[in-house]
Amino acid sequence: MNDHELWRELGQQLRVDSVRSSSAAGSGHPTSSMSAADLMAVLMAEHLRYDFDRPDDPRNDHLIFSKGHASPLLYAMYRAAGAISDDEMLTFRDFGSRLEGHPTPVLPWVDVATGSLGQGLPISVGVAYAGRYLDRLGYRVWCLTGDSEMAEGSMWEAFEAAGHHGLDNLTAIVDVNRLGQTGETMHGWDLDAYARRIGAFGWHTIEIDGHDVTAVDSALSEAASTEGRPTAILARTEKGHGVAAVANVNGAHGKPVPDEEAAIAELGGRRDLRIAVAKPTGDERPHDFPTAGELSLPAYETGGKEATRKAYGDALVALGNARADVVAIDGEVGNSTHSEEFAKAHPDRFVQAYIAEQMLVSYAVGFQVRGWRPFAATFAAFLARAYDFVRMAAVSRANLILAGSHAGVSIGEDGPSQMALEDLAAFRAVHGSTVLYPSDPNQTAALMGEAVDRDGIIFIRTTREKTPVLYAPDEAFPIGGSRVVRGTDADQVTLVGAGITLHEALKAAEALAEEGIAARVIDLYSLKPIDADTLLAAGRETGAIITVEDHFPEGGLGDAVLDVFAEERDAPPIRKLAVRIMPGSGTPAEQLAAAGIDSAHIAAAARELAGTRTAAATT
Amino acid sequence: MNDHELWRELGQQLRVDSVRSSSAAGSGHPTSSMSAADLMAVLMAEHLRYDFDRPDDPRNDHLIFSKGHASPLLYAMYRAAGAISDDEMLTFRDFGSRLEGHPTPVLPWVDVATGSLGQGLPISVGVAYAGRYLDRLGYRVWCLTGDSEMAEGSMWEAFEAAGHHGLDNLTAIVDVNRLGQTGETMHGWDLDAYARRIGAFGWHTIEIDGHDVTAVDSALSEAASTEGRPTAILARTEKGHGVAAVANVNGAHGKPVPDEEAAIAELGGRRDLRIAVAKPTGDERPHDFPTAGELSLPAYETGGKEATRKAYGDALVALGNARADVVAIDGEVGNSTHSEEFAKAHPDRFVQAYIAEQMLVSYAVGFQVRGWRPFAATFAAFLARAYDFVRMAAVSRANLILAGSHAGVSIGEDGPSQMALEDLAAFRAVHGSTVLYPSDPNQTAALMGEAVDRDGIIFIRTTREKTPVLYAPDEAFPIGGSRVVRGTDADQVTLVGAGITLHEALKAAEALAEEGIAARVIDLYSLKPIDADTLLAAGRETGAIITVEDHFPEGGLGDAVLDVFAEERDAPPIRKLAVRIMPGSGTPAEQLAAAGIDSAHIAAAARELAGTRTAAATT
Repeated sequence: MNDHELWRELGQQLRVDSVRSSSAAGSGHPTSSMSAADLMAVLMAEHLRYDFDRPDDPRNDHLIFSKGHASPLLYAMYRAAGAISDDEMLTFRDFGSRLEGHPTPVLPWVDVATGSLGQGLPISVGVAYAGRYLDRLGYRVWCLTGDSEMAEGSMWEAFEAAGHHGLDNLTAIVDVNRLGQTGETMHGWDLDAYARRIGAFGWHTIEIDGHDVTAVDSALSEAASTEGRPTAILARTEKGHGVAAVANVNGAHGKPVPDEEAAIAELGGRRDLRIAVAKPTGDERPHDFPTAGELSLPAYETGGKEATRKAYGDALVALGNARADVVAIDGEVGNSTHSEEFAKAHPDRFVQAYIAEQMLVSYAVGFQVRGWRPFAATFAAFLARAYDFVRMAAVSRANLILAGSHAGVSIGEDGPSQMALEDLAAFRAVHGSTVLYPSDPNQTAALMGEAVDRDGIIFIRTTREKTPVLYAPDEAFPIGGSRVVRGTDADQVTLVGAGITLHEALKAAEALAEEGIAARVIDLYSLKPIDADTLLAAGRETGAIITVEDHFPEGGLGDAVLDVFAEERDAPPIRKLAVRIMPGSGTPAEQLAAAGIDSAHIAAAARELAGTRTAAATT
Repeated sequence: MNDHELWRELGQQLRVDSVRSSSAAGSGHPTSSMSAADLMAVLMAEHLRYDFDRPDDPRNDHLIFSKGHASPLLYAMYRAAGAISDDEMLTFRDFGSRLEGHPTPVLPWVDVATGSLGQGLPISVGVAYAGRYLDRLGYRVWCLTGDSEMAEGSMWEAFEAAGHHGLDNLTAIVDVNRLGQTGETMHGWDLDAYARRIGAFGWHTIEIDGHDVTAVDSALSEAASTEGRPTAILARTEKGHGVAAVANVNGAHGKPVPDEEAAIAELGGRRDLRIAVAKPTGDERPHDFPTAGELSLPAYETGGKEATRKAYGDALVALGNARADVVAIDGEVGNSTHSEEFAKAHPDRFVQAYIAEQMLVSYAVGFQVRGWRPFAATFAAFLARAYDFVRMAAVSRANLILAGSHAGVSIGEDGPSQMALEDLAAFRAVHGSTVLYPSDPNQTAALMGEAVDRDGIIFIRTTREKTPVLYAPDEAFPIGGSRVVRGTDADQVTLVGAGITLHEALKAAEALAEEGIAARVIDLYSLKPIDADTLLAAGRETGAIITVEDHFPEGGLGDAVLDVFAEERDAPPIRKLAVRIMPGSGTPAEQLAAAGIDSAHIAAAARELAGTRTAAATT
């Protein structure tokens, strides 16, 4: 069998196996797999450099299925590579199987979860950027994309970023099979339409018949040898190619072929080709950035004032000094988030994502694929733009830190478009997430030191305004902890705040003290995980709790506290102070007052609840 | 003064006023306003058709500042048009002023809030689509965009959609002032780079000097007379133009000019030009789609089975039959969400957004600007892609319905990428939102009948699986209500579910009844607003509550219930059953069991809590 025959046979095997696994599962996307089978056959037989026995080899190429629903094809490739058995392939979509409906890193050869379209390519750009500018290794990134997902704006953020950085180590293989889930795509088989667009973004484009294995091989070679810009291979293919009942037929998306045996026969029957995928060669090792000794976090003098967002930037520089793996990305607001401090100190490890938040998070996801430790920052409000990417990053078991500045109404005059008021709810709901909301610059630095080694999606919410420095530089603030900033055994009410509202709570406690009301104040800097013990004790000991948050009432700090007391009998009354209006413009102080979360409102609520408890206790 | 002199003078006046208002405020974006002043001067003097006394005139043009931070320019235009006084202009960014830091519809001439970049153009596409295909009126949509925001993928979703629909009533005026917040944009003054990209998406492009008023006038005329495709005017401008201290100077973003008086003098001093903006002419009226009589919602036979997503589609058809203002949009999954029923019944009022969820929501926002009643659907998981648009839609005081299908682990084999498990948290946190999660097809239809007349952002979560029909077709389900599906005075525990988990709760209650444990079951189909009275009564009467949700534990149904009891003394223990694992593939039943939210887990929790209460009561 010559190469061309092998490629054709392998393509048919991948089709047969896609039919078999999806028929065994009773669901899945065989037709979306069959269109791309020849593309992937030639890729794995000739161009991919990957050691399936050593998926962590830094020299490995990366293959990312942006069209994650073509998972039957990916798993068929794994079988052909000898990475999984035929039996395991047929566990596709079974409960407990590693072969999920859409690929996830439960499989060691999958870098990131896909299945929410338009994410694989942006993340591929992140990996390719890491290859070129961080690892400085010769690996290539091959990204199989669908044509339907070209409608996603995130794809164009990715095309723009890759073109801008000249990532010639990246190839997008676009499977133009014409048909989406419900009908024809916007451009059908008009390859030129895609080439014009992608070419305009600075990519080299190649148009081919995606079932002509010779053309596929040439295109992949051309992509690999193109210098200075990424390549997109626009492959005209047929959805369901090879099986007349489903080939180029609308309505055959996302379901097994109607007659498995007939389809396999039409494809020439089962095959058991094994492909020895080429392994990476050479003794390249990832680049190691120079560091400057032990971690020395910034220190702020107690009694002074500083914004936690500034402490974020300063701590990031310190982490970058001490650790070669720390990388920062910003959404073109680095002088607001204070990423710019890092950009100045470590320009080689800073990436400007411009105003493209989906790409911002995708860089982070891509970098952590290769073991880098990314910190991505923008206004917390604008992280909402990338919420689907964050959700999927959790499915990817990604480890990354997202910093959102300018939280809440306390930003002042800019108004609601710039105010994060839903972010705590959104990030708390992400699986396995950590949600931090520091109240003080030294605490911010300490938490950055903790976050850098923690797994999962970590969100750090920072404040625009300068706030008093409460804590000494050497104090410890473990994630999952809290701090009783003020309190005695005689407290009649507990005030729980974080960030800007902690300072309002402290002012309220002072005012209350003058009236003879003793208020405990808890700094709940870690919302998830949460320090249940301290809160439960405060509930028992003070009999009433007031939570205060610069956030809408749902899903934020208040709800996190309520959750702690959910199953308690004799739980104290808990009043949630939160932003219940749509804010406009105004000074930070006017905004806090209008939203009912300033010290005066806190004190008023405390008077009411502390009073009630005393009354109840005396009756 | 001839036209050209007037335009130039008006441009200077808009600059002077941008300087004055931002200096008065002590913050704001004068330099981003000054770059676009000549563009807007010529537009308002010659091309805009708008009656400031009748902002609701359907024949009015629409002017949308996608670069919302140029609000000083917009407000200066309002002053020049005589819509606001000089005094009011100087209230810019004051607490309580209509002139917020970024424009919002608190002002009658503002269609939508902007300030999160990359949103104004997609929404402009929605308005232009409405003009062409729904209203069928001759109004034009003028959208002022920045150059920095070209990095946002949502802009390219918009370019693609407008090009696809040939919206020649839309003009994007791109203010290419080269400088972003922290530095130069990716393309600087390379107008060709923008023209290549936008042109590739099917737009007509014109490149001009944005300070040459003659060129601006010609370009606007050419845009208005271009047929068959939208036009983008790429205007090379200078940020801070006219004031040497800030003109084309990096670091002058987002702050008042350093010396107000000097700047005004340099610009030639204050002016008081009044422009009589041309009003729309003619007696065109919006198109009226034919309807077919009274609303007749679909009916499903009790005892049968049907999926709530199917009921969504059926009810949508019925609403479309009865009401001419109902419009539907789908993200290329209409056979999953069941928007396709509407597409077939009312093709002229259906829009295919393809897989571009930001554009999906933008169509809805744009349509409601013109009084249409949009229902936009995709998988609930993928609405996360548009979360920033939803957040901003709330700032826009938009009225629209978002339907998210395929909620939770119960979708089965497709795996976590397709499962909405954070959506309830995300949507509950949106200001003024309504969150519905129907458990039954007749209830779904009834809620659709309620939702169609309700203000704000309404989210309807539907279920993939067919579930038993519990309710008769004529039953009322008010928003903000709940339903006690099962219960007596002797209940020992309350089970609260919605959607798929209500059915699991009912199965659990049956099993418990056989063991002699009486469980009340509440269908909490309206999560926000919530029926506090029914829940409080259940807490008092049964002494223990178990919430069950096909959603991660934070911010969803359980937290909504906790909030009801927050301030209660003697609140019952509340146990939240929710998805606490990262799911994989498996059947719906396997998924519900693995997540601990199936009937067996509910019954187990009920035995524990009901038992404890009895024990506590007897001691």
